[in-house]
Amino acid sequence: MSTVTKRIILCGLGTVGKAFVRLLAERRGQIAKKYGLDIEVVAAVDIGGAAVADQGTLSVDDLLVHLDAGGAVETFAPHARPGLTGVEAVSRIPADILVEATPTNLVDGEPARGHISAALQSGLDVVSANKGPLVLFYREILKLARDNGSRIFMSAATAAALPTLDVGLICLAGANVLAVEGILNGTTNYILTRMQVEKCAYETALKSAQEMGIAETDPTLDVEGFDTRNKLIVIANRIFGEQLGPDDVPLEGITRIGLTDIEKAVKSGKVIKLVGTAERSDSGLKISVGPKALDKDHPLASINYAEKGISYLTDTMGRVTVTGGKSSPTGAAAALLKDLIHTVILAD
Amino acid sequence: MSTVTKRIILCGLGTVGKAFVRLLAERRGQIAKKYGLDIEVVAAVDIGGAAVADQGTLSVDDLLVHLDAGGAVETFAPHARPGLTGVEAVSRIPADILVEATPTNLVDGEPARGHISAALQSGLDVVSANKGPLVLFYREILKLARDNGSRIFMSAATAAALPTLDVGLICLAGANVLAVEGILNGTTNYILTRMQVEKCAYETALKSAQEMGIAETDPTLDVEGFDTRNKLIVIANRIFGEQLGPDDVPLEGITRIGLTDIEKAVKSGKVIKLVGTAERSDSGLKISVGPKALDKDHPLASINYAEKGISYLTDTMGRVTVTGGKSSPTGAAAALLKDLIHTVILAD
Repeated sequence: MSTVTKRIILCGLGTVGKAFVRLLAERRGQIAKKYGLDIEVVAAVDIGGAAVADQGTLSVDDLLVHLDAGGAVETFAPHARPGLTGVEAVSRIPADILVEATPTNLVDGEPARGHISAALQSGLDVVSANKGPLVLFYREILKLARDNGSRIFMSAATAAALPTLDVGLICLAGANVLAVEGILNGTTNYILTRMQVEKCAYETALKSAQEMGIAETDPTLDVEGFDTRNKLIVIANRIFGEQLGPDDVPLEGITRIGLTDIEKAVKSGKVIKLVGTAERSDSGLKISVGPKALDKDHPLASINYAEKGISYLTDTMGRVTVTGGKSSPTGAAAALLKDLIHTVILAD
Repeated sequence: MSTVTKRIILCGLGTVGKAFVRLLAERRGQIAKKYGLDIEVVAAVDIGGAAVADQGTLSVDDLLVHLDAGGAVETFAPHARPGLTGVEAVSRIPADILVEATPTNLVDGEPARGHISAALQSGLDVVSANKGPLVLFYREILKLARDNGSRIFMSAATAAALPTLDVGLICLAGANVLAVEGILNGTTNYILTRMQVEKCAYETALKSAQEMGIAETDPTLDVEGFDTRNKLIVIANRIFGEQLGPDDVPLEGITRIGLTDIEKAVKSGKVIKLVGTAERSDSGLKISVGPKALDKDHPLASINYAEKGISYLTDTMGRVTVTGGKSSPTGAAAALLKDLIHTVILAD
């Protein structure tokens, strides 16, 4: 097998970015051997600046030691470039791929929007764990990618280790997707499962989820359905070739679901889940997020606790459902690594 | 998008081959538009001979009309070549891909073994729905493919519309697969589900499956676990890089499962399924097929009736399970079409 070298710029060294560096340190050699892909980190950028390889690659082993000791990238001697921004790095440093792992911002998409735009304009491919720009500016990003002959991979932004997009785009190639239904948020599924299993109120289940670190102190993003909606938008845009934004998706969360709703559903052989749905119809794509009473034998009905899943209804292949995938920084980092590998194993 | 033309030779015009011709007739245009893949059928071969395009492609529309009227390919005027064999067609006619859809033969793998060998030796890629040669002569076929720089795609031979291999190879790229567990045979799963739901004996459930056309008159291949084993061998070989054959897999079917076994399992919160398992261990790959009592919350436990599913346990992505996929000639034909598309969307 011939080996391809891909020079990457990593933006964002929070939990996901760091887990990604750790994964690279651990299996860079294995990836080269198995996929013929040699990954060189030419720059790593965080909020205070960057570390830049003057030639070749940064040592991911040394970088990991530095980060694990609490060091910031911009103090990673002798590569330290305090103050160098992501946009500057992406615009100036010769590279092949931007790996975008900064925190998701759903107000203006920054700083990821700037990073991704600059990368596409420089002809880099983009592998993004960041949902912000994909949800808010999908149309703009798609156009930039097309105009510059670049590709954008978004597994890590669409339920990460659960292969939502790969199944729809690759595993079902040639079939027409009629509908997509997904349990795309682990926190809300955890709360609904607890309510059902323990016959407890929403508040009790939420509190328990917060104590376990499954729900945030401010759970709005999850429980109001925003996170499900954001993933659904990216999935629907990619699968159905749409260019939808947040305002196009009717949205209801789970905060109004009471124990009586759950028990009523159970009595009629159903189970309530927060489902994101996108369905082809004669009048276009029907898309929404909200609680749904699923039949007990619906393939999403048996997804419990913090698990996620997505179900594709197709014309020639019937219904195909995929569930699971680790929900953790490592799972997200593994999705980034997978997309990096896909830049090589998928044709241009 | 630039368009690539792939000239295919289709061997086998039974239910799957015919469904494949129907699918091509229906969406050849759509495939060209969506994937940049123009599929030309340069020859179609069945037991009595072939139809060969003198130039360009056979009209799949006309061929379909001819087949639907009960005509054999070797009488498809003016392209009829009575007596021309698959090996002759593949060796003599310039083409890019063999689509192998003859009936599976698990004694000597013929005629598919000959077709596939000749195709690989002529530098064609192979897309196979036929399990025979893959189960019996995996090592030989792999070597031929490598020696000739050809590729072999086997989705349609490994549970067809259920994307068993794609998930393991593409969706989980970069993760290490620790174990694979699969419910790979719909007939046995149907029988076990009926026994459990209706509290009936094995013989009753089998008879009912036969009446519904789900089980064959001679159900041996399914109920003794051979079909599960055959799919598992191909999956394990591909995922773990092994070269196993039928004798390497300890095998038990479901004929000895009684209602008491099922009720005993249910009482302890479990459910009995026929599971094919391949698991990495310090001493190599542990592989077997047999009935297993799965915990109720195991992701394969909720797969009922004629549904199938496969579950991958990985290091970095956790457990990922995929279920469903249409079990029909159309589902198998759709898997062939998918693999044809993969010859273009996956890099060489």
